[in-house]
Amino acid sequence: MISSNGQGFILVCAGLGLVLPECTWTRLPSSSYRITYHASTCLSAVVTILNKVHHIDPLITRSISEFLDSMTKVGVLGAGRLGRATDIVKRMFDDPACFTYLSISGPMIPGGLRDIVRHLVEYKYVDAIVTSGANIVHDLVEAYGGAHYRVPAGKNDYELREAGMGRIADIFVKEGDFEKFEKGVYDFLDNLPEEKMTSLAPSEFLHDLGLAVKDEDSFVHHASINNIPIFSPGLMDSMLGFHLYTYSTTKKLSLDFVKDLRILGEIVTQTKKTGAVMLGGGLTKHFTMGSTILRGGLDMAVQITLDRPEGGSLGGAPLVEGVSWQKVQTEANFETVIGDATIIFPLLILGLLS
Amino acid sequence: MISSNGQGFILVCAGLGLVLPECTWTRLPSSSYRITYHASTCLSAVVTILNKVHHIDPLITRSISEFLDSMTKVGVLGAGRLGRATDIVKRMFDDPACFTYLSISGPMIPGGLRDIVRHLVEYKYVDAIVTSGANIVHDLVEAYGGAHYRVPAGKNDYELREAGMGRIADIFVKEGDFEKFEKGVYDFLDNLPEEKMTSLAPSEFLHDLGLAVKDEDSFVHHASINNIPIFSPGLMDSMLGFHLYTYSTTKKLSLDFVKDLRILGEIVTQTKKTGAVMLGGGLTKHFTMGSTILRGGLDMAVQITLDRPEGGSLGGAPLVEGVSWQKVQTEANFETVIGDATIIFPLLILGLLS
Amino acid sequence: MISSNGQGFILVCAGLGLVLPECTWTRLPSSSYRITYHASTCLSAVVTILNKVHHIDPLITRSISEFLDSMTKVGVLGAGRLGRATDIVKRMFDDPACFTYLSISGPMIPGGLRDIVRHLVEYKYVDAIVTSGANIVHDLVEAYGGAHYRVPAGKNDYELREAGMGRIADIFVKEGDFEKFEKGVYDFLDNLPEEKMTSLAPSEFLHDLGLAVKDEDSFVHHASINNIPIFSPGLMDSMLGFHLYTYSTTKKLSLDFVKDLRILGEIVTQTKKTGAVMLGGGLTKHFTMGSTILRGGLDMAVQITLDRPEGGSLGGAPLVEGVSWQKVQTEANFETVIGDATIIFPLLILGLLS
Amino acid sequence: MISSNGQGFILVCAGLGLVLPECTWTRLPSSSYRITYHASTCLSAVVTILNKVHHIDPLITRSISEFLDSMTKVGVLGAGRLGRATDIVKRMFDDPACFTYLSISGPMIPGGLRDIVRHLVEYKYVDAIVTSGANIVHDLVEAYGGAHYRVPAGKNDYELREAGMGRIADIFVKEGDFEKFEKGVYDFLDNLPEEKMTSLAPSEFLHDLGLAVKDEDSFVHHASINNIPIFSPGLMDSMLGFHLYTYSTTKKLSLDFVKDLRILGEIVTQTKKTGAVMLGGGLTKHFTMGSTILRGGLDMAVQITLDRPEGGSLGGAPLVEGVSWQKVQTEANFETVIGDATIIFPLLILGLLS
Repeated sequence: MISSNGQGFILVCAGLGLVLPECTWTRLPSSSYRITYHASTCLSAVVTILNKVHHIDPLITRSISEFLDSMTKVGVLGAGRLGRATDIVKRMFDDPACFTYLSISGPMIPGGLRDIVRHLVEYKYVDAIVTSGANIVHDLVEAYGGAHYRVPAGKNDYELREAGMGRIADIFVKEGDFEKFEKGVYDFLDNLPEEKMTSLAPSEFLHDLGLAVKDEDSFVHHASINNIPIFSPGLMDSMLGFHLYTYSTTKKLSLDFVKDLRILGEIVTQTKKTGAVMLGGGLTKHFTMGSTILRGGLDMAVQITLDRPEGGSLGGAPLVEGVSWQKVQTEANFETVIGDATIIFPLLILGLLS
Repeated sequence: MISSNGQGFILVCAGLGLVLPECTWTRLPSSSYRITYHASTCLSAVVTILNKVHHIDPLITRSISEFLDSMTKVGVLGAGRLGRATDIVKRMFDDPACFTYLSISGPMIPGGLRDIVRHLVEYKYVDAIVTSGANIVHDLVEAYGGAHYRVPAGKNDYELREAGMGRIADIFVKEGDFEKFEKGVYDFLDNLPEEKMTSLAPSEFLHDLGLAVKDEDSFVHHASINNIPIFSPGLMDSMLGFHLYTYSTTKKLSLDFVKDLRILGEIVTQTKKTGAVMLGGGLTKHFTMGSTILRGGLDMAVQITLDRPEGGSLGGAPLVEGVSWQKVQTEANFETVIGDATIIFPLLILGLLS
Repeated sequence: MISSNGQGFILVCAGLGLVLPECTWTRLPSSSYRITYHASTCLSAVVTILNKVHHIDPLITRSISEFLDSMTKVGVLGAGRLGRATDIVKRMFDDPACFTYLSISGPMIPGGLRDIVRHLVEYKYVDAIVTSGANIVHDLVEAYGGAHYRVPAGKNDYELREAGMGRIADIFVKEGDFEKFEKGVYDFLDNLPEEKMTSLAPSEFLHDLGLAVKDEDSFVHHASINNIPIFSPGLMDSMLGFHLYTYSTTKKLSLDFVKDLRILGEIVTQTKKTGAVMLGGGLTKHFTMGSTILRGGLDMAVQITLDRPEGGSLGGAPLVEGVSWQKVQTEANFETVIGDATIIFPLLILGLLS
Repeated sequence: MISSNGQGFILVCAGLGLVLPECTWTRLPSSSYRITYHASTCLSAVVTILNKVHHIDPLITRSISEFLDSMTKVGVLGAGRLGRATDIVKRMFDDPACFTYLSISGPMIPGGLRDIVRHLVEYKYVDAIVTSGANIVHDLVEAYGGAHYRVPAGKNDYELREAGMGRIADIFVKEGDFEKFEKGVYDFLDNLPEEKMTSLAPSEFLHDLGLAVKDEDSFVHHASINNIPIFSPGLMDSMLGFHLYTYSTTKKLSLDFVKDLRILGEIVTQTKKTGAVMLGGGLTKHFTMGSTILRGGLDMAVQITLDRPEGGSLGGAPLVEGVSWQKVQTEANFETVIGDATIIFPLLILGLLS
């Protein structure tokens, strides 16, 4: 009656007696089973299945998907988290009833992830994007002909400033490319019909902007084509927001940020299941989690971050916290991988695409 | 000719010869001096003043301001950073020509800091607040009669959810108090004149809301009274934003976020000097730094954070990065203290108030 | 029957019925009480006392001890942790039956803490020191006439190397001072009786070395005078260990590290209660916690660290983990403060010395 | 004369004039070139090659080695660091003249890495191991028939303690397996010749112990067979050290830790080049870096860690700091990857083994 599951073995917790016949097995989350004894003393035992750590095999693990499988089989520490996270994301992608958010905070697009994000949008693996304004800007910088570079070693910020280059960590953009970006945005605004100048929610604005972008490599463009909404609650804090502001000093222009909550609210109430993949934290993660408040929360979530939880800010808060704000459904399936998203996220996605 | 400064001694760097007469001393930042020799071989030497680490005296250090002085005299590691940060904030507060931002991200108001923030606003130590929506919400929760509590030990999120309590880290708010908050906001909206329902920038909205708040302990209230603007670029991502959204499903309501950049732009261009104290990072820090882009950046800045810089997101980015985006003036005076703002910020402010 | 404790109020958890008479109150840790009903249905309820967050008062909080009291009254986030940690350390110091370890990892002595550590040793607040070799070295560097300096701004490691200076973070020591240290150690070794050259445990060696040191400001010296043992399991990995090695290439010299576990084992088995204050983590923290394994663990512990726990290494591991290795007694009293020890530790100690 | 390198293009820094003929190109580190003009005005320019960020291709990147190549081509943030680190480790492995250390701190062996570490030792990719005692213990636990398991979800430390299980993060070992380990160690000690009971350095002791181990999967065993020394400066702080101590209360037993520095010193002075791969930090990293002090430092080093540098302890200290202590050769080739070593290290190694 007590059998192993092939991976480990069953240990009856100390002090809980024998396992009696006539018991019913109820599966609990996380590999525990409750056996209810149909006996007069009304005993119950929790039988726990132990998962052994399987070491990674250096002789055969060659592909990314094999690597991710081995992470699951290690099962502990960061490796285990990555393995479980991969499985959760797979279930999000495989389930047509699951509405999947991709939340991106921090310099993901300029950090090599532009094509992967576009692929997820182009082939509809995700259903909505929540992003910082910066990631939109960096997608458009490349869409308008610019590029991102690694900061030349040895240069410090003062030298970069003198040379007309702006830096985020070790990535920089030439001021000339930012000028092309500014021109692209202004041209779009010049052509925006007057009634749209003050009535659009940010997601509607980004939809129209994406349609006007001609670059097949742009994720904003493909999001528009596929009607995948892009929400950017902090949009005004970006070069795009800055240009909207400067433009608005000459022509009437405003974005209705309250409207985006109505748009999102309508979407969310119709979903059967929701999942989220959250890179980094802060506003986009909090907004993603908060948007599901009307339906009792997210069903599945994976977070990849280097932020630590103790400061109490949402960046590194364990996903469990969402439960108390009804942001993550009770018994939701979620995992946090501590790591740099520019390494972990593409690794996980490429493994799933294999 | 070479003298000590009372704190250390002067070391002529190896290999740079003797100090010759007829030299002029030019003071460089960071305690270095350039001596230009008026000699045919056009030598120059950089003379460096070394600051000795002074150990903290356990017998006499009893007040907070003595403690902060000792931090400056230690001069290294976190202690040194805290000492220098204290000095920078003092200069911000003492200089009437300095326009000082206070940027608050993360659970600062519910974390014991409500009275300190209100004090800074009430006595006009700061000139503008940039905050997450959450901090405004938590100020108003208390303004409307609620309170914040420490999560009872041993309770997990599922139990809290069942018991109607929401948690941020180890702080929670009773759902009843959130209901009072909702009622307070709705009452205010019901009384808002129609023309204001779609034309206000968030800072203008918060100004009116603050005037309607009757609690003398509220920082939002005192900000309104003193005409200290509160900017909240991510306002929609908060319980306040949520209630604006729900209200907007029944009545026309929107906030003009683009307008707040015009308001801020006008303020900033008139400032002679700008300084910022930034707790936590992310959107509010980035917005604060970005707002000074029109005047070439901040002159002084102090950041208190537990975020690490390597992920490339703005939370933990060293303040130097701002230079390349013209956010921090060349030769700006800035320091980052790695620490929990609920400890470091009140310590620093109380020391200055002494 | 249900009354407030002056700090909060009592909330009967949802769904747990009325409080009946004839109940006995059993105090549980963390402010929860179990009420056992003497009734046939054998109900029990857990009544929870909620602690309200009291905001820090900017008008009256001026001394360090007032500041620490306010941290306790805030009770949440880093502030709450610091408040509780202060209380735990106070109890360690006040209880004569408590054997208190001070574990120091990372550059504490060169970071301004030399006098505070010496004070704790001189006045017997602590009963044993566990330290990295580096902290011993830096104490002796100053004992032999040297000093620590803040790295001149703008210098990078290559320049420092050229100029004969070694750096740890932003602290450096002049090579000349390291030469004095080397001479001091060699002189001591030259005078060590032959039988001691191969039979001493590191703590015995450090005891003799401390007696030979003439500097009244040295903590190693005062530890020797007060017979407070200094354990340094990683001693060989330090400049002191390096000199022992170079000396041993010319004369027979060895230290018996196994013996130090016997010495420590004997001490530990005689203690009634044990407490530990641990700055930083890694080896010294693990060794401190592990040393109590024979008596079922530490009774009280406070840890001050910036390390994060997720990597699984002991630096940032929550103190709870020690329970499973029998390192921390069940119901032990422990707290972790996330912060820079050069700020938090002196703050806490100075508050207690007040 | 100015040509692109296929990856980017050449930008002449602002304000530095034209590039003149008759110039000589001197290659500087990090892709910068100095052109010296042979002209009367003695101009010089630094010409900088900019590396463009190449986005990861979701359609073709399927193997681990393709993934690591794409990391190099991204070139920025964590991805860039991982790419450069992979290249450095490859050069260490490929160069027969390079003496390569593997330093392991934190729970690597029980975290799924046992077979990978053994493979590197078995096939002599590494020349010396520096490890915490814990990793040796965990290798031997499995060698003596035990295993590692993932902690059953929902169990806390008190329950684990009751059930006789010890936990490190989310890994645990059954007390029965620790008893087998204790027996294995005691049996080995019982059979150790008397003259070896007090004269061995830890590395010599571990060599003999490894020969006595019969498990072909053990890295300690293969290290002994291949005469790859294992240094463990903190060995006494581990279950192995604990058993040596308990054994020493009944029989004379000591280890000569000073001798290991002589052994290591001899090895190091004969090396032409040294490299180190350091997982985690603290003592093992510091010891590894310090051991090369006699030859002016490491030539190449890669560090994988989640520790942050600001606390000043060696765990997260950037590798550059080693230069000032002469631990890393000037112009050494080094990189730090911020990440969980249980994910990043196997990924990097498996990519190289492909």
